[in-house]
Parts: sequence; structure tokens; C-alpha cells
Amino acid sequence: MSQPPSTALPHYELLYHPGIPGRGEFIRLALEAAQTPYTDLSNASPSGYTTVQQTCMSPKNLSSSDGNPPVFAPPALRIPGGGQSEGGGKALVIAQTPNILWYLGEKLGVLAPGGGEAGRYHVQQVVLTALDLNNEVHDTHHPVAVGKYYEEQREEALKKAKDVRETRIPKYLSYFDRVRQHNERDGGGQGKYLVGEKLSIADTTVWQVLDGLMFAFPKEMEARKKEFPELLGAFYENVKQEGGLKDYLSSKRRLPYSMGVFRYYKELDRQ
Amino acid sequence: MSQPPSTALPHYELLYHPGIPGRGEFIRLALEAAQTPYTDLSNASPSGYTTVQQTCMSPKNLSSSDGNPPVFAPPALRIPGGGQSEGGGKALVIAQTPNILWYLGEKLGVLAPGGGEAGRYHVQQVVLTALDLNNEVHDTHHPVAVGKYYEEQREEALKKAKDVRETRIPKYLSYFDRVRQHNERDGGGQGKYLVGEKLSIADTTVWQVLDGLMFAFPKEMEARKKEFPELLGAFYENVKQEGGLKDYLSSKRRLPYSMGVFRYYKELDRQ
Repeated sequence: MSQPPSTALPHYELLYHPGIPGRGEFIRLALEAAQTPYTDLSNASPSGYTTVQQTCMSPKNLSSSDGNPPVFAPPALRIPGGGQSEGGGKALVIAQTPNILWYLGEKLGVLAPGGGEAGRYHVQQVVLTALDLNNEVHDTHHPVAVGKYYEEQREEALKKAKDVRETRIPKYLSYFDRVRQHNERDGGGQGKYLVGEKLSIADTTVWQVLDGLMFAFPKEMEARKKEFPELLGAFYENVKQEGGLKDYLSSKRRLPYSMGVFRYYKELDRQ
Repeated sequence: MSQPPSTALPHYELLYHPGIPGRGEFIRLALEAAQTPYTDLSNASPSGYTTVQQTCMSPKNLSSSDGNPPVFAPPALRIPGGGQSEGGGKALVIAQTPNILWYLGEKLGVLAPGGGEAGRYHVQQVVLTALDLNNEVHDTHHPVAVGKYYEEQREEALKKAKDVRETRIPKYLSYFDRVRQHNERDGGGQGKYLVGEKLSIADTTVWQVLDGLMFAFPKEMEARKKEFPELLGAFYENVKQEGGLKDYLSSKRRLPYSMGVFRYYKELDRQ
């Protein structure tokens, strides 16, 4: 935890649902890659999820907590003392996955590895596109009603998953691989990084979506390896060996996929 | 065009599809609210869309243009000289609607009206949530296949639209209205602004989604006015009177809704 010194950072709190990687995982990966201490409230103590529900999930709240505006849905990040520019050491509470990633990138130095202003916006462009794919994958098992069970929308899910597998996944994989190639050619990324010369939240975010896709659609992704051997091979493997990620991915803090965004239903995979 | 002086700004180019408001509209509203000159390439000349297609829509590009990484899809923003920190006056090309809005907010002063760092992240949190609703509305007419016609997925669209109208729209409207109330109580927004004391991209982005919903689901939104009279009344009306927006909304630059994100299909509205 030498860069930046952890003593200079507040102790971050991740507010998310317990027991699933979900959208919280993008934030965990950023924090773990930067070897930054944090508390994953819902998974740390039995009362943690109550705090998350009160802060991020109450449909009547006029504030999340500490005088911050309400939050639509988890994940959120609570930063003790982070709101000091407004009112003397209050906590800052922010929500929306890309917003939290941008914040952490600015604070932890994991966002833009030497690319200056342009690099920051190029990183965020890749992050947002990966999160769009994450949303499309969620809709493969919930195409017509967010609040109902998969079993109630299985017929529609078969159609949606077919479209996502056949047209959307290859379009996104092509894009991520072309970003990687562009950086290999012009940016010094050696084919290992998507933007710039070292790991950024572009890499961790795309990696998480690729890893989730391999869980949810194993046959589909195995077949796609022929088209995108570097992206799904060396790039994917290299991220797992980076800094704090190697330890994290073999720890209990890395939660298994279950009933979150990435789910395995045999009938939704390539047949 | 007095704040900031237009002479200090590059001449922005918006790269988007011609003839529809679409996701480009969020960017037009930010530029127009700041009374900042820009060229809407596809709508400015017959050759403009060719440039957009070459820059943002080629499935084989390793670069968008000017040495920038590839773009997944429009909209994009081209900023002449914006990439100077990397290599001497090259253009910066960035994509992803929230990314472009964040950039413009930083440059044009329309992002965080006096809220400092916390205000910037709170604005972006609202922007991202409004854009999530925009995506859900798109899926009401394209629930199972992005690339196929509405008529090919009409049965699924009826289910998706019912869910969005009955569970998602009220959830989002409640959230936007609670953000407004929070700011009225604590932030000096007088009920007119969502974050801080003057117009921001939080207001223009939420406003555009509300306006689109009123076009796509007129009966649904009329009925919701009873639950959210301030949000759908005074807030909605006030934004239309702000700075550069009043002129813009009555100009030919403001395109009518047609076959973009917000479409009117009578059968998808409340019956």
C-alpha cells in the first residue's frame, strides 16, 4: 500500500448488496488494484446491509446520509470527510458505478496512467462502454420486467440472449480489442493495457465483464476465442496477475457469481 | 456568449446521427445552455454524416480520427486542439454521452454550479441516472433485439412498456423529485434546480428525459402529474426559460422526435 500512502486516504466504505459480485465488483476491483483499504459494508457485518438499505434503497429518503442527496440504487461509496469543501468534514456519499470509478481513479491514480486529460476521458469512454455491455447482459435474463423472476420471462429471455450473443457480444469484443490494438500500436500498452502504459479502471472494468461473460456464456465465449485470441487470452490472463488483483482474486473477498448480473442458464448459452 | 468567452474555447463538433434528437440531444442542450458555438456535423451539411460514419461507426477502425482510440457508437465530440497535452494541438475525440457531458461541464461551467467537488459528483450521479432511464425507454420498443424492427418485437414491447410505465417511471420520477426537494431544502435551488443554485447538466439531462417521456407516453405522464406536480410542472417549465435554452427550443436546431429513443406508439402508452 505504498502508492498513494494509505494514511493520506480516508477509509472508503462500499455500499452494495451482500453476497454477489454485481455492480459492486467494478468498484472492488479498482480499490483492490490500488491496494486501498475499504470496508464492504454488507459483507463485513450483519448490520451492514441495514445501513445500505437505509442509505441507498429507501424510496422516501430526501437524503442518503450526512446531508448528501438521495441515491437511486446501490452501489454507493461513502468517503468520510470527503464533503469538506461544502461543510467541514462531513462524509461525501456518491452513487452510480461510473461516477464512483471516476472518483476513485482521480484519487487513487488508477484511472489515467500518464495520459493526461485526454487519457482520463479515453479511459472513462471504455469504462462506460463496458458497463453498457454489463447492462445488456443483465437484460438477457430480465428482458421485459426488472422486478419479476427469470422464469416469468424465459421465452423473451431466449430471444434476447440470442441477440446479445450473436450481434452484441461480438460488436463489443471487437471494440475492446481494437482499443487494445490501438494502444499497443500508439500508446505503449504492449497489448496488455487498453489505455496508456499501466493498469487502469478501463482494464479492470472490461476484465470483469469478460470474466462474467465466460461464466454466463461459456460455450459462446469459448467459440469467440478464435476471433479474439489476444483479448480473451493474454490480455484477460495478464490482468489477473496485476498488483493487488492476484491476491484479491484468490481471496474470500472475491465472491462467486450466483444470481446477480452474470448468471448461468444453460438454455441462454450457445447451443 | 459572454461566460466563458467563446474566443477562449475551441469550436466543438458534435458527431451524431442526422435528423433525430437521440442521445445527441443531451449534448446539444449542454452546449446551447452555455451559449457555446458548435457544429452539429450530420445536420450541418450533406457530407457531415459521412464523417460521423467514418469516425464513429466503422467496425474495423483502430482509431476514430486524429490518433484517438476507436469509438463504439455515436455520439462523439471532436475538440480541435483538445489533445495538446499528448502531442501538440491534435484534436481530442471522446465518446459516451456522460463522458462528453462531464467534459463540457468542466470546460463550460455548466456542470457544478458552486458545489465544488461534491457538487460535481452529485451532478454526474443525477445525469447518469437520467441516462439509465433513457436506455430503459429505448428498450420499451426494442426489448429483445436492438437491430430488428419494432414490429418484429411488438408482443415483447407491450410487456416491457407496461413494466417501464408501471414500475420504473414512477421510481425514477420519485428519485428526481426527491433530489429536487433535497436541493430546495438544503442547496438553495428554490425547487428550480436539482443540484446547486443554478442550471447544470443535471437539470438539462433530466429535463430532456421528462420531455421525451411526455412525447412517448402522453397519457401515462399526464396521470403522473398528480403525483409529481412540481417536477412535471414548475421544474419542467422553468428549465425551458433558462439562458440559451429558450431560444434553442424554438429554433430549427431543436429537432422533432421521430424514430429515435423516444417514439410514440399508442399501444405502448397507458390505455
